[in-house]
Amino acid sequence: MSIRVDYRASLSLVGTVLKYLTVPLLLPVVVALLYGETVAPFVLTIAVTLLAGGGLERLAPDPDIGPREAFLMVATTWLAVAVVGTIPYLVEAHGIPGLLSPIHPDSTLGNPANALFESMSGFTTTGATVLGSINVTDHTYGVMIWRQLTQWLGGMGIVVLAVAILPELSVGGAQLMDAEAPGPGIEKLSPKIAETARVLWGAYFAITVVEIMLLYGLDLAGMAGPNMDAYNAVAHGLTTMPTGGFSPQARSIEAFSAAVQWVIIPFMVIAGTNFALIWRALSGSPEKLWNDTEFRGYLGAMGVLTAIITGLLFTGGFATGVPEGATFDAAYLTEQAAALTGSLEPSLRHALFQAVSIVTTTGYASIDFDMWGSAAKYALLFGMFVGGSAGSTGGAVKIIRWIVIAKTVRRELFTSAHPEAVRPVRLGGNALDDRAVRGIMTFTLLYLVVFFLGAFVLAIDSTRVGMEFTVLELISAAASTLGNVGPAFYRLGPMGGYIPFPNTSKLFMVGLMWAGRLEILPLLVCLTPEYWRR
Amino acid sequence: MSIRVDYRASLSLVGTVLKYLTVPLLLPVVVALLYGETVAPFVLTIAVTLLAGGGLERLAPDPDIGPREAFLMVATTWLAVAVVGTIPYLVEAHGIPGLLSPIHPDSTLGNPANALFESMSGFTTTGATVLGSINVTDHTYGVMIWRQLTQWLGGMGIVVLAVAILPELSVGGAQLMDAEAPGPGIEKLSPKIAETARVLWGAYFAITVVEIMLLYGLDLAGMAGPNMDAYNAVAHGLTTMPTGGFSPQARSIEAFSAAVQWVIIPFMVIAGTNFALIWRALSGSPEKLWNDTEFRGYLGAMGVLTAIITGLLFTGGFATGVPEGATFDAAYLTEQAAALTGSLEPSLRHALFQAVSIVTTTGYASIDFDMWGSAAKYALLFGMFVGGSAGSTGGAVKIIRWIVIAKTVRRELFTSAHPEAVRPVRLGGNALDDRAVRGIMTFTLLYLVVFFLGAFVLAIDSTRVGMEFTVLELISAAASTLGNVGPAFYRLGPMGGYIPFPNTSKLFMVGLMWAGRLEILPLLVCLTPEYWRR
Ligand SMILES: [K+]
Ligand SMILES: [K+]
Repeated sequence: MSIRVDYRASLSLVGTVLKYLTVPLLLPVVVALLYGETVAPFVLTIAVTLLAGGGLERLAPDPDIGPREAFLMVATTWLAVAVVGTIPYLVEAHGIPGLLSPIHPDSTLGNPANALFESMSGFTTTGATVLGSINVTDHTYGVMIWRQLTQWLGGMGIVVLAVAILPELSVGGAQLMDAEAPGPGIEKLSPKIAETARVLWGAYFAITVVEIMLLYGLDLAGMAGPNMDAYNAVAHGLTTMPTGGFSPQARSIEAFSAAVQWVIIPFMVIAGTNFALIWRALSGSPEKLWNDTEFRGYLGAMGVLTAIITGLLFTGGFATGVPEGATFDAAYLTEQAAALTGSLEPSLRHALFQAVSIVTTTGYASIDFDMWGSAAKYALLFGMFVGGSAGSTGGAVKIIRWIVIAKTVRRELFTSAHPEAVRPVRLGGNALDDRAVRGIMTFTLLYLVVFFLGAFVLAIDSTRVGMEFTVLELISAAASTLGNVGPAFYRLGPMGGYIPFPNTSKLFMVGLMWAGRLEILPLLVCLTPEYWRR
Repeated sequence: MSIRVDYRASLSLVGTVLKYLTVPLLLPVVVALLYGETVAPFVLTIAVTLLAGGGLERLAPDPDIGPREAFLMVATTWLAVAVVGTIPYLVEAHGIPGLLSPIHPDSTLGNPANALFESMSGFTTTGATVLGSINVTDHTYGVMIWRQLTQWLGGMGIVVLAVAILPELSVGGAQLMDAEAPGPGIEKLSPKIAETARVLWGAYFAITVVEIMLLYGLDLAGMAGPNMDAYNAVAHGLTTMPTGGFSPQARSIEAFSAAVQWVIIPFMVIAGTNFALIWRALSGSPEKLWNDTEFRGYLGAMGVLTAIITGLLFTGGFATGVPEGATFDAAYLTEQAAALTGSLEPSLRHALFQAVSIVTTTGYASIDFDMWGSAAKYALLFGMFVGGSAGSTGGAVKIIRWIVIAKTVRRELFTSAHPEAVRPVRLGGNALDDRAVRGIMTFTLLYLVVFFLGAFVLAIDSTRVGMEFTVLELISAAASTLGNVGPAFYRLGPMGGYIPFPNTSKLFMVGLMWAGRLEILPLLVCLTPEYWRR
């Protein structure tokens, strides 16, 4: 291990990923053709991607990477893909000099900081947006489907990262992800990452197709509300499985019927579940689901939050007024409060939808939850730290870590009263490796510190340019971007967006989304001198 | 260790503590006599304390306790003392039936929940208040000095708890507190807790006297502002060393001159320093101060926060408006903003005063910091989690734990890149025991979880009674009471108080103050079945 990092091999593999990106870029090309739009933004993106990818691949013709190179490859991939992903947004706003005039020159994504924010938000499946107008009529269908597609592609990457790469790197306790599977471990699921990817992507693709068909079926049955059509069915199918949350509707899932909201809920739940577990359940062992400690904890967390929020909404726990600059008005507040107070179905539906949406870090909204009272809003803020399951596309801390932490506290209490006793932390019958437990605690503390400091940076940066965000806005923006959730509160709420921030803050949040998606440590590892030495 | 907990021995020692409480109760008796007030509230308290203390002592005539009994004794002591401490407040409001008519029947402390809140806030040196009118003319001098004295007494208890008891219990990593002292360890400072207490209380008493003399000296020199007198000098002397923060002035330290504010700052810094370290420095080894990692980190944390806040205030980072119900008005905002913007001394003074006050968890205010902008307020919210040094009267997480966590993250990054390497976490040249590192991480995570859940409980409880607090109020109230800081934000800010909360929330915060003061784990240990079994 006294060899230097083979960064050429890492970058060569990033080049390969870029080259593969040209295949899904054919979808927006097809959509553009269907709607009679220019395909130029995507052809240019394909060209740049092929050139950059090919160039990087030449750095090492036959790359063979070890764990250290994997850190660099993983960190660089998300950045490279996000940068390339800005091209369609920039071309739509600015055109191509001498070749194509601007298509929508008013697009907020013409600002490169905004374009990078939207692209990173897509590929990290965060779903925070800086789109000024979220409407296909103010953009091309091609660009809007590209925005959705970045999340679906990001989700594919995350599935492989979470199930096959991070556990191998044994970082932040990710090796624990599979501790409960005494049968075929994930390493036996497929001896190679590529094989694992093929298997999991099959399930990912199949579930996406089922959701699109259900949504379109509701539309055909006339049960989906006026805004659903084939385009919207595809668009939302692409952003559920990656727990993404981008919607081409300005009012997110509120734009559709209660039936659509009920249908989307189980798909969000699936998206936040460990994919290795899903694969096993689909492979004929559904009982593995109910025997899984994390899965039970995951359902339990969402269940408790749902019960609390339902109670709050049912008993009228809404905002007592409309703050200046809010994304809702008095009429909306009155109407929604009247519709929910004392009515079980809508209270339960919106409580369940939002609890699931936030805990899984999807970020869809079935209602402008900023008009909820402080307690219900706090429940969502709290949920932003829970996170989905390990091995899923969900972000934030993740349920399994909280379970291990709870068990570690229990052990500390026991050994305090009985110092002579030795008691390992157990999960599903297996004693956990101390190194993994330490990794989990270290990651969680680091996550919380980065969150606290991140909000601090946003506070100082906005003050620097003479802007005043509320402390809640600052806290929720940091929590939501670091946790890859999407919406925050007040002006940054589900019906608002991140446009008000200065560009420097947006670029900082690009970093938070990136770091959060990679579970922070792999990114930090690449920044230590020890990584590059020896 | 298969013996049951000897709870009689624990309670017997609690009885001894109660009996000793009668000695300091002579101070309010003297003050009442000086001001020609009735001594009845304190005579009754002395009688009850003697009776209860004597009764508890009879449970075990010659108590000999081990670590397990120490947990119970420590947890029970703070509760018992806080309950007894309510008597003067209740008697002032209600009188004694048939003996004494009510003295100040309008006192908010006539409400038992308020009285317990104020008493626990005193003995835990939190400094959060539910006094409706903080003014000696609306209370007796005796009761007001009792309120101050509860903090000074609480501080005496905490010094012994932090330096001599918690490290022995090896809970939450407290055994680390002294890892850097290769010379005479704390256990050699004095072979018995009683001896340790005698030594440290000597320093505690001496420093308190010096502060009182300095404050009164400023008054005699006419440099202390109109509100300072001997009574106020004593009152503030009693609440600085315990990092308490109670003041008999409604506007806290803003009531005094800049000179008084400058004088109080170094005493808060001393109060937040490890008392074992202070004792060594005073015993002829002042160089130990500068060689101490925690002390350097402690000064560094306050320095960085001060620099940031000074910059924010100097450049005009104040609130952009006066929210309804705020504790400041537009005239105050305009006047203070004009006085601070572009003026270095007041900007630096208030920034330093508040950074030191919050990080040490004293909670004094030199200004209504609620009129600061979000960034400066967030800096204080952030500071509430930093905490003072281990072995001091400061609360919250404490600097040494953050230092160990930072080093643990560094180690995790290193071992991620070099999995074959073994690298212990080092502090001041010594490798730290893994069990201590684990205890520190467990405590810090538990602290943050209790904070998040605590704010959630406050949110739900206030909604239950139809009240609406902002999320910032809820978060800061939980952080401030759990961290034993005192003031929070907005209505609960330094010029406000905790009166708006429903009684249930106040009792819950009594629990947060109690848990925070005991570093959570010793309290939780007593609540596990394993503690009582075997
Ligand atoms: K998301
Ligand atoms: K305090």
